[in-house]
Amino acid sequence: MFAHNKRLQYTVRVSEPNPGLANLMLEQFGGPQGELAAAMRYFTQAVSEDDPGRKDMLFDIATEELSHLEIIGHIVAMLNKGAKGELAEAADSAAEMYRKINGPGNDSHLTQILYGAGTPLINSAGVPWTAAYIDTIGEPSADLRSNIAAEARAKIVYERLIACTDDAGVKEALGFLMTREIAHQKSFEKALYSINPNFPPGKLPGDPRFANTYFNMSQGQGEMRGSWNQGENWDYVSDREQQMAVDGGSGEAEVKLPARDIDLLKTMAQRTMSDPAADPPTGAELGMKNK
Amino acid sequence: MFAHNKRLQYTVRVSEPNPGLANLMLEQFGGPQGELAAAMRYFTQAVSEDDPGRKDMLFDIATEELSHLEIIGHIVAMLNKGAKGELAEAADSAAEMYRKINGPGNDSHLTQILYGAGTPLINSAGVPWTAAYIDTIGEPSADLRSNIAAEARAKIVYERLIACTDDAGVKEALGFLMTREIAHQKSFEKALYSINPNFPPGKLPGDPRFANTYFNMSQGQGEMRGSWNQGENWDYVSDREQQMAVDGGSGEAEVKLPARDIDLLKTMAQRTMSDPAADPPTGAELGMKNK
Amino acid sequence: MFAHNKRLQYTVRVSEPNPGLANLMLEQFGGPQGELAAAMRYFTQAVSEDDPGRKDMLFDIATEELSHLEIIGHIVAMLNKGAKGELAEAADSAAEMYRKINGPGNDSHLTQILYGAGTPLINSAGVPWTAAYIDTIGEPSADLRSNIAAEARAKIVYERLIACTDDAGVKEALGFLMTREIAHQKSFEKALYSINPNFPPGKLPGDPRFANTYFNMSQGQGEMRGSWNQGENWDYVSDREQQMAVDGGSGEAEVKLPARDIDLLKTMAQRTMSDPAADPPTGAELGMKNK
Amino acid sequence: MFAHNKRLQYTVRVSEPNPGLANLMLEQFGGPQGELAAAMRYFTQAVSEDDPGRKDMLFDIATEELSHLEIIGHIVAMLNKGAKGELAEAADSAAEMYRKINGPGNDSHLTQILYGAGTPLINSAGVPWTAAYIDTIGEPSADLRSNIAAEARAKIVYERLIACTDDAGVKEALGFLMTREIAHQKSFEKALYSINPNFPPGKLPGDPRFANTYFNMSQGQGEMRGSWNQGENWDYVSDREQQMAVDGGSGEAEVKLPARDIDLLKTMAQRTMSDPAADPPTGAELGMKNK
Amino acid sequence: MFAHNKRLQYTVRVSEPNPGLANLMLEQFGGPQGELAAAMRYFTQAVSEDDPGRKDMLFDIATEELSHLEIIGHIVAMLNKGAKGELAEAADSAAEMYRKINGPGNDSHLTQILYGAGTPLINSAGVPWTAAYIDTIGEPSADLRSNIAAEARAKIVYERLIACTDDAGVKEALGFLMTREIAHQKSFEKALYSINPNFPPGKLPGDPRFANTYFNMSQGQGEMRGSWNQGENWDYVSDREQQMAVDGGSGEAEVKLPARDIDLLKTMAQRTMSDPAADPPTGAELGMKNK
Amino acid sequence: MFAHNKRLQYTVRVSEPNPGLANLMLEQFGGPQGELAAAMRYFTQAVSEDDPGRKDMLFDIATEELSHLEIIGHIVAMLNKGAKGELAEAADSAAEMYRKINGPGNDSHLTQILYGAGTPLINSAGVPWTAAYIDTIGEPSADLRSNIAAEARAKIVYERLIACTDDAGVKEALGFLMTREIAHQKSFEKALYSINPNFPPGKLPGDPRFANTYFNMSQGQGEMRGSWNQGENWDYVSDREQQMAVDGGSGEAEVKLPARDIDLLKTMAQRTMSDPAADPPTGAELGMKNK
Repeated sequence: MFAHNKRLQYTVRVSEPNPGLANLMLEQFGGPQGELAAAMRYFTQAVSEDDPGRKDMLFDIATEELSHLEIIGHIVAMLNKGAKGELAEAADSAAEMYRKINGPGNDSHLTQILYGAGTPLINSAGVPWTAAYIDTIGEPSADLRSNIAAEARAKIVYERLIACTDDAGVKEALGFLMTREIAHQKSFEKALYSINPNFPPGKLPGDPRFANTYFNMSQGQGEMRGSWNQGENWDYVSDREQQMAVDGGSGEAEVKLPARDIDLLKTMAQRTMSDPAADPPTGAELGMKNK
Repeated sequence: MFAHNKRLQYTVRVSEPNPGLANLMLEQFGGPQGELAAAMRYFTQAVSEDDPGRKDMLFDIATEELSHLEIIGHIVAMLNKGAKGELAEAADSAAEMYRKINGPGNDSHLTQILYGAGTPLINSAGVPWTAAYIDTIGEPSADLRSNIAAEARAKIVYERLIACTDDAGVKEALGFLMTREIAHQKSFEKALYSINPNFPPGKLPGDPRFANTYFNMSQGQGEMRGSWNQGENWDYVSDREQQMAVDGGSGEAEVKLPARDIDLLKTMAQRTMSDPAADPPTGAELGMKNK
Repeated sequence: MFAHNKRLQYTVRVSEPNPGLANLMLEQFGGPQGELAAAMRYFTQAVSEDDPGRKDMLFDIATEELSHLEIIGHIVAMLNKGAKGELAEAADSAAEMYRKINGPGNDSHLTQILYGAGTPLINSAGVPWTAAYIDTIGEPSADLRSNIAAEARAKIVYERLIACTDDAGVKEALGFLMTREIAHQKSFEKALYSINPNFPPGKLPGDPRFANTYFNMSQGQGEMRGSWNQGENWDYVSDREQQMAVDGGSGEAEVKLPARDIDLLKTMAQRTMSDPAADPPTGAELGMKNK
Repeated sequence: MFAHNKRLQYTVRVSEPNPGLANLMLEQFGGPQGELAAAMRYFTQAVSEDDPGRKDMLFDIATEELSHLEIIGHIVAMLNKGAKGELAEAADSAAEMYRKINGPGNDSHLTQILYGAGTPLINSAGVPWTAAYIDTIGEPSADLRSNIAAEARAKIVYERLIACTDDAGVKEALGFLMTREIAHQKSFEKALYSINPNFPPGKLPGDPRFANTYFNMSQGQGEMRGSWNQGENWDYVSDREQQMAVDGGSGEAEVKLPARDIDLLKTMAQRTMSDPAADPPTGAELGMKNK
Repeated sequence: MFAHNKRLQYTVRVSEPNPGLANLMLEQFGGPQGELAAAMRYFTQAVSEDDPGRKDMLFDIATEELSHLEIIGHIVAMLNKGAKGELAEAADSAAEMYRKINGPGNDSHLTQILYGAGTPLINSAGVPWTAAYIDTIGEPSADLRSNIAAEARAKIVYERLIACTDDAGVKEALGFLMTREIAHQKSFEKALYSINPNFPPGKLPGDPRFANTYFNMSQGQGEMRGSWNQGENWDYVSDREQQMAVDGGSGEAEVKLPARDIDLLKTMAQRTMSDPAADPPTGAELGMKNK
Repeated sequence: MFAHNKRLQYTVRVSEPNPGLANLMLEQFGGPQGELAAAMRYFTQAVSEDDPGRKDMLFDIATEELSHLEIIGHIVAMLNKGAKGELAEAADSAAEMYRKINGPGNDSHLTQILYGAGTPLINSAGVPWTAAYIDTIGEPSADLRSNIAAEARAKIVYERLIACTDDAGVKEALGFLMTREIAHQKSFEKALYSINPNFPPGKLPGDPRFANTYFNMSQGQGEMRGSWNQGENWDYVSDREQQMAVDGGSGEAEVKLPARDIDLLKTMAQRTMSDPAADPPTGAELGMKNK
């Protein structure tokens, strides 16, 4: 069960209202790398997890991410607080209002007109949050890697947001949130490497014929070798012929069909053939000038 | 520039048509962990990459994933080939047709009615592919981790698909595709660890006050300790008071507002107050029986 | 700040695994009327709310909805628990596995193949949760009405789920969750009617010329009158002429354009005119048989 | 059947072109609270409704909302009319064109480049309209409440748009549209309260043990009492212990599994355990500087 | 302005309820090729159209498509009518109810549980309708071609639905709807070819160096020639070298950067280089068995 | 199989960085009319195509479109290249950074903060690419028309982008891409008209009673006649009575229901009736001032 205390995990002190900056901050509220994505990613994993250590850790971190969602949400709310009153009380002239929501440095027309200077679960471009952002598949050797990557991404977006504001209180709170992503990544790394083995992920081994091959698919000036495609662990294949039909077969796709299906497909083929022997007049030709 | 050869990278031999199985296979064609997601993930990273080694690798693997998209697409096409002719030629009675697309073991009504037994970019539930599945953010120490995780996930989904079919040719091609995810993961791991340092990701260091703290946010029976939250590297905080306002402040959110905004907010507050001193009759009460 | 305790708000006792039933339950986990929608609806309102009474209430109820999300999530997890192990260990033959995820009474291929028998934030058809489900606009006389409606909808979906299962423990937990929607609706009703006045919502009065008019736009057999369109408060307009251009104007749309724009539009009109005097041969005619 | 007359329900007189303002107006054309959402909400309810009074009313109002969609669409078209010709005829220099679609006060690059200064079904941020905005569930005691809330929201968004423009003709037409939302809300209220009883919505009664409880889930400074959680109708529960496992059970989730599933889960648990006794080196540690 | 008459454009006579068939019919209600897409496609074009002939035609056809939406909606409603009462009154045992919504031949759990056996704007897989289905760009020589194609697609989906039902009344109404798509296509063809010229679409001519070239990008067994790539109008290019850098340049991408940017990019390159000279241990290697 | 060469199909020479222009260019990278949509449209058709001529052509053009995706992607990358370094190295002051991403002429905050000045698969408003943009249905007489229309649309969007930039290298590359759409349209036209007959699309003939009727659904001032609704091929119906129930029936919808369903529907109707004889007080009335 969740319980809530009105004190935030980190104090939010904003020096002045700024709806344009609020809009940027939405990236970590309702954006793909934001705190709702983090909280829901770990919460849903926690619910389905059977390993007691991971389950406990996932609930710990999910709960903290919810508390971070609350922090970033309050940053947005504080930055929007002035605009909210001005809008609700229609305090400005129409020209002033129009300028405020469309002017340079202030892309906030959506957050104001549609969302009332609130805290909607959208990213900074207005795209609603979607669970398509969550890539959990229910296998720990994959999901923990996904979590590690997610923490790395969130850390970077915070880094970029920090670079966009001089507001000391906002910077400080963002710095806290950024740092916690680092700590969480460390926990997930420990949990991953405590599974032994964890690579390859899952249960089925790879086919040894193809597990160490590197296909040099992109050729021409600019090719490089490095530990990712050279060394004793790699079989490097550049010959185009050897990249195709690597099973040694025809490289074609086939299916064994019942006779009736074959007949039907022939009928369909006949009916819908683009006749290579024809050179018909076309609609485009009808539509040309001086046709 | 891309070039295409009609031979597949791996021969596809399907033993009999099965639109229900085709539907499952769509998961790796147009699903979140599928080959289009992989190809586009690496292709878009390649286009923007400035490091020559990674750029080359990303184009190599993106091109191979496109070739895998072609393989899994042909598996779907072969499994649907019989249904396609039957549908186009309306060869079955209505009752038989209805049964074929709705019957047990055959959730294919969408792929047949809407997509003509083709190869649409949807997952197995009919959800259209979206670029929201791609989590690239343009920083290699994050993106390579995302790639590693993506390969791990794709490997697992192939493992599950393999468990659902006895068709030897399908199993074999899926096994190839699964194995290649392992190989790609290895390449991305090498590329990541060839960045030195790569942790924490990005440029800004974490705040040392919070980088090694583990907040025990979920308490009660079932708590566990492990390397992810114990040991000399962790400061483990269970006390609820110490989890709040960790900056030592009030834990409240505040913003300095101009006087006019303060006045407007007061006006708004007065106008929209939910009066705690009132106990008004409500719509729900109007709607109750024997109210 | 959120805190978590591992005890659920309501004990979940499931009598036997059933992935098909788990799939239905997802409707209240990641569906539009489900608990995530409820929790996020109230949480985001709470963050931006300035009225202390509503803010407190919204955090109370948001936190409870999160705890409900946890309950319904555990129902899903328990119903899927058997399938999860069978899938992860590939314990069944391919034929059996295929039958289990596609068979009648068991539409679970998505939740198993893609999500590993976990608890994804999708509805029962596999559509990912989206914040487009949340209709908060940041004005209490509208948002509280939205909340009242949302609780009513959630109550009904629980009612329907209860009608689909004989599992006593599942029914009991669903009954608790359904009942809480009733209680929350009552709270939101009180909070709405404690705003005085709250109708019309917002600040601007309606135009008295049009506020009491009922336009009888759908005519023909089956028209009815009731308190929604008859009585002293309604001006009932059936005459089609009186329904059009009710401002007394031309009923046309016009804009005053600069001369240059008028010229450009004329040029465009000339260039792109579909000439009514022509009867050109068309592509369709080219494509007809025996054309 | 629908019929159309070329006269609008309300005359649209726009004083000058303004693609930036057109963009804002899209909020009520293709946005979540806009006229298409309203029209489709009531139209789809009308089609499935069996109660003759509601069916007639829903068709009346759906048809009017379609006519409102036409009005707001023409406002957008008039505001965009100048830009449309300039764009189609490429009348401006590239620098001027670039400035016009990106300049301050004019976020119209999407509507111009992609939509040709037309009337696309998007909101003001470019998000395409989705039926996920419609929350109809097919039960009148819920749907009518949803309709009441929807009208309240639409009223407010019109209020905000009115505050952003000095164009007298636009203001007047928006005022008409806003007022009609008030009238529609009144109709839906009458239809709701003409169902007796209508609370709780649906058929199943709530569980009396939980229907009058208010769980004080959010605690700490700022808690308030009001009619929504105090008075003789409420049982107010603040004790955290009494908030958990309110059924009197363990607060745990359990399922009775067949022996084979238990064995499989044990195997899986063993294979995928994050070993709490280990303290493995991790990828993050490999990636640290001076590791 | 729209007006509505309660008589349908075509009488709907359904011989028996069938929620599974209702679900299929949703494809033309809320699916991508369905009647809402058609109605909104033409309606939005009509609103922005300046050519009087096309504007009138577009309003005519948009209005008819709305009337078709009403017809297909009533087919769905009639097929669902029995289920609606059974569900609302909870008339069946839970086992029977579960079987009815999950059984073979009846994929209706979503339409029943979430939508109350109503008429939601989803396709047959439950995906909500989205304006992303509409491809209007505001240029008649493109939009009319889009309309022609849309009519062709809708015609085919009706053809497939007709093949799935023996219900005489449903077949007859579907036949009407299908036929009207043919008629509409003919109108759009006439309107397109009445623009002179209409090819190439738009205003800018193509570059004559590239307008008649056919690049043979896909090579290997199975290549074919036809009027689409052979004849005097085509310059057929198979040589891979001649397919690249067709402008005669380097085939590389370059940008002239200020010196400061060049320096910054060098710094970034250095910091984030994947060192080709290294062969670092990786996380994957840490995770291997017997590492 | 796909192969890649590092030389582009067309050389990209950008004269100076411009993230705002980069953002516009995304329209043809990840937008609905862009190159990914084109490539995937033809690729998926190619995979499922059985006609050898079309299959070859579709693979040819799909492969070229992928190469165009690469070109437009590199235009975006070059325009963003300066910003990428500045962002990654946090080279600007916060005020400068904020201004750069929000200033007039530069709507790039999303592409920079979230995507790191990369090449995301979004349109110019930040909406992620979705396969809902692809309208393929698996029938060549429809799909080829869809392809023709898609090429026309893409041609126009390029035309508009060309009008927005003075950068000679960008203009030149866009001109190449635009021209290729013309060439592709010509190929698709030839392939369509080489199917004989291809109209009406598909197999079922239309019902001759309704195939030549034009319903004049939109009446009033502004009606026009042209070849799309007049001439010997059209039966023009303006009489509203003759537009309804064109089958000669009642124009009503009906279904034959089992007796039990009829009873249940009566029970439901009774329970949920909006009583036309009542005039109940409503929530809105409770909420009015001075009620």
